[in-house]
Amino acid sequence: MKTRGRVFLVGAGPGDPELLTLKAARVLELAHVVVHDRLVSPEVLALAPPTARLVPVGKAPTSHPVPQERINEILVDLALGGQTVVRLKGGDPFIFGRGSEEAEALRAAGVPVEIVPGITAAQGAASVTGVPLTHRGLATGVRYVTGHCRSDRPLDYEWQGLADARTTLVIYMGAANIAEISERLIAHGMPAATPVLAIANATTPRERRLASRLDRIASDMAAARLTGPVLFLIGDVVSLYRSSPAEMFTQLAAVHPPLAHA
Amino acid sequence: MKTRGRVFLVGAGPGDPELLTLKAARVLELAHVVVHDRLVSPEVLALAPPTARLVPVGKAPTSHPVPQERINEILVDLALGGQTVVRLKGGDPFIFGRGSEEAEALRAAGVPVEIVPGITAAQGAASVTGVPLTHRGLATGVRYVTGHCRSDRPLDYEWQGLADARTTLVIYMGAANIAEISERLIAHGMPAATPVLAIANATTPRERRLASRLDRIASDMAAARLTGPVLFLIGDVVSLYRSSPAEMFTQLAAVHPPLAHA
Ligand SMILES: C[S@@+](CC[C@H](N)C(=O)[O-])C[C@H]1O[C@@H](n2cnc3c(N)ncnc32)[C@H](O)[C@@H]1O
Ligand SMILES: C[S@@+](CC[C@H](N)C(=O)[O-])C[C@H]1O[C@@H](n2cnc3c(N)ncnc32)[C@H](O)[C@@H]1O
Repeated sequence: MKTRGRVFLVGAGPGDPELLTLKAARVLELAHVVVHDRLVSPEVLALAPPTARLVPVGKAPTSHPVPQERINEILVDLALGGQTVVRLKGGDPFIFGRGSEEAEALRAAGVPVEIVPGITAAQGAASVTGVPLTHRGLATGVRYVTGHCRSDRPLDYEWQGLADARTTLVIYMGAANIAEISERLIAHGMPAATPVLAIANATTPRERRLASRLDRIASDMAAARLTGPVLFLIGDVVSLYRSSPAEMFTQLAAVHPPLAHA
Repeated sequence: MKTRGRVFLVGAGPGDPELLTLKAARVLELAHVVVHDRLVSPEVLALAPPTARLVPVGKAPTSHPVPQERINEILVDLALGGQTVVRLKGGDPFIFGRGSEEAEALRAAGVPVEIVPGITAAQGAASVTGVPLTHRGLATGVRYVTGHCRSDRPLDYEWQGLADARTTLVIYMGAANIAEISERLIAHGMPAATPVLAIANATTPRERRLASRLDRIASDMAAARLTGPVLFLIGDVVSLYRSSPAEMFTQLAAVHPPLAHA
């Protein structure tokens, strides 16, 4: 009798392989096939068993991405063929990961699917910079938004609600539109001096950071030319980044050793 | 020469011990002392080395909690005494965890501190229910807010922004105030029929769920009497919960049947 295939939709975290969950590491060991995004770091892929086939479906910003419908098909076909498939996504599969679209396609095809959450980029960035996502007196909540929009459409947030000073704002996929986003937030009442931290490749050896403020972040970004995925943390909690003493800044300068001990 | 103490501020995830990160599991093995919250499950504490001393500082809702200042002191004293301390918190230490207050107190005292992120309750709840936190066409972002407030103060959100229909709203610590929260959201324009999923003890064997809608969640909660930590997922993404077919539930039903998904 043929084994029934199945798919694990697994969050690989922001890059550091140690930020995978124990469950993610365990199911990765079961994989016949690993279907992965470009965001998934080489260090994480190294945890797949040597016998597993790796299928990259990553979206390079410049080259043609594999369309979502095709990714869904690949997953369904592999599972119906009896394979144990690990679908590895950067961060958490249910936060800007289109994981739920894949889960729906799989369920519609009768394929068993299990979701394994992952540390999302915001949490990775917070942990390495010491900037909390919420903090008594500075932020009573946190909000993750996408700065990306279809090329034929304007960014259509409810800007007024977004400019709430008591909520930490985290922008995913925002590098291309940060000038418009920061301008509009200011126009809707967010103070121009609100601290902003941009971080690229958080938790990896390629990590880079840029501390700025709302009215300067666009020009600072243009000058800094960060490469790789970039996340923006916006809000008063970012002030805790500057107030952190020496040990944090040692790290800034160097490549980035695990939080230097004072 | 005496070893220098240090503190790891570690997210223990929502309850399932397999949702710890590899890094959390590794640093837990180094612990001389584990200072933990009540939210940290017994299954997670079982991963501490048998030689480690366990110090509970948990806040039981009925008994007197250890004040935050005292927790800070305990951590500083242990570290200055040369101990390797793991401060274990439910979920992520930087999301409603007061982790940053502890980190600040430790840094002020010259104690090296390292942050290890954890799967937050919202991610745990999303992964077991199949409800994504963002989804094309249903939610362009997600927002975590606290439903808790000091007893002498009203809930003072910017309600208008909170009632944004395109953002998934996740309410932590909201069980006591869900009647007021749901009423106000409706008053500010969120449709009364917006689907809501309440989940208690997500990812643990004690998990229970309640599917409802914004105008009924308060009365349904009163009837259901969920115990333990409860999280509310509010928004159109919750509609994906009902559409989830059998296999997802086969697996889950055995251990903990979904309470209701009428
Ligand atoms: C398609 S979204 C995927 C998000 C992912 N599912 C998560 O939960 O982190 C890609 C965006 O995530 C952010 N991102 C992911 N990994 C990152 C990292 N290591 N450092 C900074 N930003 C990251 C960037 O904003 C990037 O544009
Ligand atoms: C003080 S907050 C701590 C949150 C934690 N730092 C996190 O990131 O999940 C406590 C609240 O978290 C939520 N929570 C934590 N664990 C949960 C679980 N397993 N199931 C449901 N809600 C949970 C509940 O809303 C609870 O009232």
